[in-house]
Amino acid sequence: MNNTLLIQEKLAQATDILNELNVDVWLTFVRETTLSPDPALELIADVDVTWKSAFLVTRTGQHVAILGHFDAENVRTLKAYAEVVDYHQGIRQPLREVLARLNPNTIAINYSEGDVAADGLSLGMYRSLLAILDGTPYADRLISAEKIIAAVRGRKSAAEIERVRTAVLITEQLFNEVELFAKPGMTQHEIADFVRGRIDEMGLGYAWPKPFNPIVTCGPDSAGGHAAPGDVVLQKGHTLHMDLGIKQHDYCSDIQRMWYVLADGETEAPPEVQRAFDVVLGAIQAGEKALTPGIPGWQVDAVARKHIVDNGYPEYMHAFGHLLGRVAHDGATVLGPQWERYAGICELPVEVGNIFTLELHVVIPERGMMSLEEDVVVTESGVEYLSVPQTALRYISS
Amino acid sequence: MNNTLLIQEKLAQATDILNELNVDVWLTFVRETTLSPDPALELIADVDVTWKSAFLVTRTGQHVAILGHFDAENVRTLKAYAEVVDYHQGIRQPLREVLARLNPNTIAINYSEGDVAADGLSLGMYRSLLAILDGTPYADRLISAEKIIAAVRGRKSAAEIERVRTAVLITEQLFNEVELFAKPGMTQHEIADFVRGRIDEMGLGYAWPKPFNPIVTCGPDSAGGHAAPGDVVLQKGHTLHMDLGIKQHDYCSDIQRMWYVLADGETEAPPEVQRAFDVVLGAIQAGEKALTPGIPGWQVDAVARKHIVDNGYPEYMHAFGHLLGRVAHDGATVLGPQWERYAGICELPVEVGNIFTLELHVVIPERGMMSLEEDVVVTESGVEYLSVPQTALRYISS
Repeated sequence: MNNTLLIQEKLAQATDILNELNVDVWLTFVRETTLSPDPALELIADVDVTWKSAFLVTRTGQHVAILGHFDAENVRTLKAYAEVVDYHQGIRQPLREVLARLNPNTIAINYSEGDVAADGLSLGMYRSLLAILDGTPYADRLISAEKIIAAVRGRKSAAEIERVRTAVLITEQLFNEVELFAKPGMTQHEIADFVRGRIDEMGLGYAWPKPFNPIVTCGPDSAGGHAAPGDVVLQKGHTLHMDLGIKQHDYCSDIQRMWYVLADGETEAPPEVQRAFDVVLGAIQAGEKALTPGIPGWQVDAVARKHIVDNGYPEYMHAFGHLLGRVAHDGATVLGPQWERYAGICELPVEVGNIFTLELHVVIPERGMMSLEEDVVVTESGVEYLSVPQTALRYISS
Repeated sequence: MNNTLLIQEKLAQATDILNELNVDVWLTFVRETTLSPDPALELIADVDVTWKSAFLVTRTGQHVAILGHFDAENVRTLKAYAEVVDYHQGIRQPLREVLARLNPNTIAINYSEGDVAADGLSLGMYRSLLAILDGTPYADRLISAEKIIAAVRGRKSAAEIERVRTAVLITEQLFNEVELFAKPGMTQHEIADFVRGRIDEMGLGYAWPKPFNPIVTCGPDSAGGHAAPGDVVLQKGHTLHMDLGIKQHDYCSDIQRMWYVLADGETEAPPEVQRAFDVVLGAIQAGEKALTPGIPGWQVDAVARKHIVDNGYPEYMHAFGHLLGRVAHDGATVLGPQWERYAGICELPVEVGNIFTLELHVVIPERGMMSLEEDVVVTESGVEYLSVPQTALRYISS
């Protein structure tokens, strides 16, 4: 399936969503998108624009693009916008004319406090828009498009799900290669560079920036989280953790896997390592069972978090899951706790077609981190795993 | 020179500029910068951040970064921020505390109507900032940082100029390779793919997206401007035009070159082709002579535009030049006409250290486009060419 068909599919979905939310027009207002990209634009127009540009979708199914004459041809080529208006000197007049013709009662624009993927409108562009609409009734009819964008982005079509599934499959194959490659004595750098080398050889992209992808954690001395892989050496009796996300055909994977490096004479992990694995796995499975259409994200997080705390571990300082798609953090609806930083987005309901990560970790003193992450799609009846979930600790021996 | 030193250099420059503009604090407020990058952030912190983050530079030379605990290590590693504050649950409290301590009378924030490179603050983030500052005196002390950002970005240091010079040198070598490769009968696609293949082989980046880089125009049937290279075939008696920009070590080139494809029996271009070249070259040289520190951008454009019109050609529908640096369109100060779309930014004065493109075109009926573009740096006394300017038409024969 090519990108034009994907975009036509998303534009049709957008019209349904406008009707569902009772909004007349969705306006995406952008400029110089290579320098200042709007994450919502790629869903509905796979192009970059230079001058101020407006992409309008109406509840009656009209698609209008207004843009500088240099960029018009690229949007015409998409064959997704029946009306492409190009201008030479400024967007003020054509935008006012199109709005006067459509005469919408509500105009949803591309900003959001809670959802970065729906917040492509800059403050400068918003001020320009207000100036353009000055003297018209439309400045007072602007609302946030966050619910529209979240639904268009979050409700993955069958074609989108297949793209993520393929990215996940490749990622799992890379983990198998890591298992054959990694040996005690190697540094985090060496292991990460091996994976990057394979990603580059295969012509794949990265789900998040390469300096921090994959994240490799070796034993208790590695920094957790978003730090770049360092010079810590993988040692016997320690855990090896990898967080890896690739991108292929614009869609991403995001998976974490765990190994234990057997010490001399050991045939299995020591009890505290096995117990940490079991508790992390149990929390993911508990969260997975709670993940059903309609539930607010924080309630899913709460189930997984309770499992960790009930088993005597400190709670993880992040969300249990996030949406996954064109990027690793693919917009609104976080399976996260009711903290300030998740305000609003952890209250949003889970929807059919959402692809979520499920992830959490505990720390094992003197052994290292224990952290798993799976990718799942929400169905009418629950979830379907896109990854083959890790249900047993994996081993590395020397 | 590594990036850390480059950033320390720009932060020191920023403090000078704050004093020059009489501003107490420059605040860059960002989140999830892989999805929502702020073009100003890379100048002062070569990192990506996840949660809401604040980077503060004061006129007294203090540098404070406030960010989520996951991201703190990467900023500490930069060694450019003496104070790195990390938080777990929300930025509200630490940001209020830092501002209360600095107690600035003016806080310049990252937005601009006219300058996309200074407009990284989204409307959603601005609304969040107002909520965070609610009840403090600071919400009323916010101003646009556009002049600060424009100066920090626009006044290239010696190290930055060297990086652009290297990118230009490589680009000129690629044009030499094109001259040997291109033959009548080839399509725009073939010629563009040859260049992209060489760019990829050399491990270089693109100054603007690859689908439109290079732009290849063959004869009168090619679309001008930003259209993707198509299937138009290069023919004898037509012009070949290429607009190419590469990126190496984060800095870009942006150059246009012209060839004429000799027809059978021809030893030089026909008079109308030669005349078009001479007029375009004359306009670039006239503009170059006008380009001196302190002149508003539109006055430089006016000189070049007048040369074109005085010689009987229609005026070009774009600006004569733009800044060049980390991206092809590198921020404010456009050498452009006083049209709506250049409002404000064409009034800004040219400064020492600015790197500009100088570019314009005319169309030759039945022959094709004639378009040149040079890269120059503004000095105390005028300009220095970073490219070796094209002063004679180049030829391709079969």
